[in-house]
Amino acid sequence: VSVPITELTETCRRAIKTYGYDDVETQILLDVMMYAQLRGNNQGIIKVTTKGIARDPACTPIAIEHETQLSACLNGNKNAGMVVIHKAMDIAIEKAKTHGFGICGTNNTSTSTGALGYYAQKIAEEGLIAMVFAVSPEFVAPNGAIQPIFGTNPIGVGIPTAGKPVVLDMATSAYSFFGLLEARTAGKKIPHGVAIDSAGKITEDPNAAIDGGAIVGFDGGYKSSNLALMVELLAGPLVGAAVTDKMAAKNWGNLVVAIDPKLLGQDEFERRAKMVTDRVKAAKRQPDVDEILLPGERG
Amino acid sequence: VSVPITELTETCRRAIKTYGYDDVETQILLDVMMYAQLRGNNQGIIKVTTKGIARDPACTPIAIEHETQLSACLNGNKNAGMVVIHKAMDIAIEKAKTHGFGICGTNNTSTSTGALGYYAQKIAEEGLIAMVFAVSPEFVAPNGAIQPIFGTNPIGVGIPTAGKPVVLDMATSAYSFFGLLEARTAGKKIPHGVAIDSAGKITEDPNAAIDGGAIVGFDGGYKSSNLALMVELLAGPLVGAAVTDKMAAKNWGNLVVAIDPKLLGQDEFERRAKMVTDRVKAAKRQPDVDEILLPGERG
Repeated sequence: VSVPITELTETCRRAIKTYGYDDVETQILLDVMMYAQLRGNNQGIIKVTTKGIARDPACTPIAIEHETQLSACLNGNKNAGMVVIHKAMDIAIEKAKTHGFGICGTNNTSTSTGALGYYAQKIAEEGLIAMVFAVSPEFVAPNGAIQPIFGTNPIGVGIPTAGKPVVLDMATSAYSFFGLLEARTAGKKIPHGVAIDSAGKITEDPNAAIDGGAIVGFDGGYKSSNLALMVELLAGPLVGAAVTDKMAAKNWGNLVVAIDPKLLGQDEFERRAKMVTDRVKAAKRQPDVDEILLPGERG
Repeated sequence: VSVPITELTETCRRAIKTYGYDDVETQILLDVMMYAQLRGNNQGIIKVTTKGIARDPACTPIAIEHETQLSACLNGNKNAGMVVIHKAMDIAIEKAKTHGFGICGTNNTSTSTGALGYYAQKIAEEGLIAMVFAVSPEFVAPNGAIQPIFGTNPIGVGIPTAGKPVVLDMATSAYSFFGLLEARTAGKKIPHGVAIDSAGKITEDPNAAIDGGAIVGFDGGYKSSNLALMVELLAGPLVGAAVTDKMAAKNWGNLVVAIDPKLLGQDEFERRAKMVTDRVKAAKRQPDVDEILLPGERG
């Protein structure tokens, strides 16, 4: 069954509004989830049906806790993660357009920020370089450990070019927590090598991973684990979010960075950035590969 | 055979000076290589003996091509990579200490920058957050490709804590080009899965990897490849370095970023960052693991 995009969009809009979001908030949630939906990733409209975007009735307006010419830190005050990081994005863009650099952190949210690629792309469409980081609760074990400490801790990077922006959006984990829940509900196995059980052994049973086990880093080794730790620090203590028992604290952090490439003085930056991506696209391919895909190009 | 560190240091100092470096340059090269040497990585003093640090007699003084309050871009004018990126580090630190943010790019060098962890650590020791990127010539194939386009493109991140700084220093490739050369000289195989031959098949023969083959990304998949592309853009066109035929152009780029964590207004940042690393260190371990290592803690 296929559904026209306009119909899907309006159905989602109505569903989001039933949670109590106003028109502006609804539009943000809708845009972020449709971005993911059209790329086929699990940050899409499934969230509408899983209470992943439920509105906290105790929320109060987003507050700027700290601000300088180049920076701000926002207290999300329990508003929707997507609404709060969207505001951080707007602030980072405005500061970077004015001063060359903008950085904005957020704390005190406990719902999904959706696909970080959405924000990275919006920043890159303004001609700015984006770096976006988000911390989630304890799902992922550090390399060598069994206990989950890191979140799935995604990294978003957006780079403007003379063509489309290049947008990286990747979890530092091998699998999403939502993926574990989906597999459990469906009674299905999870891929080999993405999670461990409570004894530290690789498991394909989502129940064993959820109950006392953990997801592992995307390379199953120390590099992804170290990247996850960097995200944990940049979008945790740096922005005033919880650093222990994140799940109970319901105070998860985000960090949005925008850098004006003009700071480096290279007039040809965007044109020459496209030369790099063109070169990658035109690279000699593996026999079974039809097209080399740039980050963000799928879906 | 073990050699006292002071003796090793002085022997290296004399060896570096034979290339024609002055005292200041010699000290920088020595410090960077000894940092790597004491961590047991291949950016160490082996470079002294392999012409990896040969001085280009055509070099002229490093020139600032572009400068703003927050930024600079340096023309390395064929000076040693380590000397040029060291100056970029000093500039980024000075700007970040004065204005909260500093970014400095370099182009027009074609020798090794050494271990990026050295610069990331120095920046973090100043209480600043560091991000450092470097592009090297065509050694690594994008995911799905056979042709090498990316460099080994390392990422360095340094984060100050109430304890020691946390310092990540990782290539986005599965293996170093130097490692291939070493294996060829020694007549040894390379590990399975780190390189492909000219047909795109995984090879353990360093000659097949060097002659028409390529190194692959560290996870053998799209995530490391996408990270490598981001480094390629940030330390390539953004800083005015070569974007095609980097090997022949001998114009490789670096980017150094320093961010003052005070921009986010969290007084407890360093103490709470250490809570994160303490929690990782204390995590329940795999049965065969004696200690969870933080990035930069080895060696």
